[in-house]
Amino acid sequence: MDAPLFTIPLWADLTAVGLGGIQGALFASGFRGQRRLDLLGVAIIGIVMGMGGGIIRDLLLNQPLSTLQSNWYLLTATLAALVGMLLAGPLRRLNGLIVGLDAVVIGLFGAFGTSKALALGLPLVPAVFVGVCSAVGGGILRDVFMGLPVAIMHVGSLYAVAAGVGCLVLAVSNAVGVPLVIAAIAGVVVTAIIRVLAVVFDLSLPEQRMLYRRKVAAETGALPIVKR
Amino acid sequence: MDAPLFTIPLWADLTAVGLGGIQGALFASGFRGQRRLDLLGVAIIGIVMGMGGGIIRDLLLNQPLSTLQSNWYLLTATLAALVGMLLAGPLRRLNGLIVGLDAVVIGLFGAFGTSKALALGLPLVPAVFVGVCSAVGGGILRDVFMGLPVAIMHVGSLYAVAAGVGCLVLAVSNAVGVPLVIAAIAGVVVTAIIRVLAVVFDLSLPEQRMLYRRKVAAETGALPIVKR
Amino acid sequence: MDAPLFTIPLWADLTAVGLGGIQGALFASGFRGQRRLDLLGVAIIGIVMGMGGGIIRDLLLNQPLSTLQSNWYLLTATLAALVGMLLAGPLRRLNGLIVGLDAVVIGLFGAFGTSKALALGLPLVPAVFVGVCSAVGGGILRDVFMGLPVAIMHVGSLYAVAAGVGCLVLAVSNAVGVPLVIAAIAGVVVTAIIRVLAVVFDLSLPEQRMLYRRKVAAETGALPIVKR
Repeated sequence: MDAPLFTIPLWADLTAVGLGGIQGALFASGFRGQRRLDLLGVAIIGIVMGMGGGIIRDLLLNQPLSTLQSNWYLLTATLAALVGMLLAGPLRRLNGLIVGLDAVVIGLFGAFGTSKALALGLPLVPAVFVGVCSAVGGGILRDVFMGLPVAIMHVGSLYAVAAGVGCLVLAVSNAVGVPLVIAAIAGVVVTAIIRVLAVVFDLSLPEQRMLYRRKVAAETGALPIVKR
Repeated sequence: MDAPLFTIPLWADLTAVGLGGIQGALFASGFRGQRRLDLLGVAIIGIVMGMGGGIIRDLLLNQPLSTLQSNWYLLTATLAALVGMLLAGPLRRLNGLIVGLDAVVIGLFGAFGTSKALALGLPLVPAVFVGVCSAVGGGILRDVFMGLPVAIMHVGSLYAVAAGVGCLVLAVSNAVGVPLVIAAIAGVVVTAIIRVLAVVFDLSLPEQRMLYRRKVAAETGALPIVKR
Repeated sequence: MDAPLFTIPLWADLTAVGLGGIQGALFASGFRGQRRLDLLGVAIIGIVMGMGGGIIRDLLLNQPLSTLQSNWYLLTATLAALVGMLLAGPLRRLNGLIVGLDAVVIGLFGAFGTSKALALGLPLVPAVFVGVCSAVGGGILRDVFMGLPVAIMHVGSLYAVAAGVGCLVLAVSNAVGVPLVIAAIAGVVVTAIIRVLAVVFDLSLPEQRMLYRRKVAAETGALPIVKR
């Protein structure tokens, strides 16, 4: 509690990176925009989704980027992107599994971000902020690279909310004395449950303006298996 | 002058963050794009506008992000975004006041950025650059998040010019021996005056190409009360 | 080899920055989008293209931004952007020369990035990654600022591939004992040759989806002399 020296196990970190990479490639390979993505483009999106969250976290914390201190992160993200690209068809049929895994992954990224921020001495609110940025950062970078409006701001995604609540649970639990590992597990579970429930029950935040009737334009024709 | 240890008073910093947050939320809540923003999206834009400038400044300076060292910045930006969202109607009627406040805010962000850069030993030109990036960075991030072309590059905004001249006044005054606080005040005043005059007299830089007749497409339907 | 203290000569660095600035301004001045760029917008794109690669490199390496430690980088990038803007017509006729110079420039940026990363102790794979990001980072930032999908992901650009192969040649040569300067020269040459051949023979990676017939929409009307 008072010395939250939380080292993320490499296997957990690489699992999160790999799952992010697969999803990025799935998203990109289903994308039909005005311009055609080539194979490298799909791989880039996979790498961006797998590594973006960790990079943004370390930039915000002004720390050396942990994803660049070993060969494993890039190799895992690239391999995962290839898998996602090649198995796009079969993987799409496992939609339920992917939503579930993805919910765990954003929980993990959020918990890694929040606990690293706490370990570096940041106060509670910024630590939660860093966790949320870690969880949703890959998705933001993906949308920016693809020239899409950032999805987490739009109706129909409880991504950031799920990450935020989970990170808050972690930080508050830790502040009142719960050991960090237990607090982190609680945070991951809370994030994953909120996210899965949001998908299952199609929950969303109210939109800012109810005035206009235009449906969400299917302007991209994207198949966002997992809306991020 | 020779030891520009310029600590920005917290109240001034938070004022700038809060005004940025209000404006971000106002902009986002007036936005009508292809996809609907939900309440969180509006809040995110408010936070991005309030905190983006300071974050970009500290990233460029390779310093710990000062906006993450205390709870106050995020709380202020979030609260301001809520205020901007709830009071969007009435606040729009105070357009003149908002333009004026905004002009002061970009002046403040520019001055904070330039003086922090000088205090860290950067030469004059990069210090001015950091100041301009602090002043316009929040607006750039806002546009990137919303999938819009970055507004400061387009006809009709003297934002960056106003910020640049003000930061240059600060840096040059300081270089010739004017005490930093006085130089900073001069910079803020110059930026604010240029910006307000640009709005009042509808000044703009010439465009690169005069060839095509197409009017600026009202492609977003946005109501940019303050064009940034 | 074992102490790769590779200081980039200032003239080489400024040459790369200047050529980047010219190209950014050429690209931006040929751009016809929905909103008109003003002169400042063109200059910003020039500066972004000239300095973006170095900034992204140093952010990834968590080092002070070398482009902000001297006045020369910003002055060079700005001057180059002005030259690119004023001489856009005549320069367009030198298309072959520009493609060649550009190929050398991405080679240089890639080599600077990879060798700086190796000098800081990064493993081979991340060092190559940093090099590629240095080489293509300016182009990515340009596209993000202009609200375009990131060009390197789309069919028809072997930019990132050329940079990647060159950086890999550098890193592997260095790892097997070739002196860094020779390894760097080899990397630059390989990158430049691949890039020029790709332009001459119109090489491209296969696209992810062959399904749809829609041609690449000439949605921007841009004249990307050098597709980046």
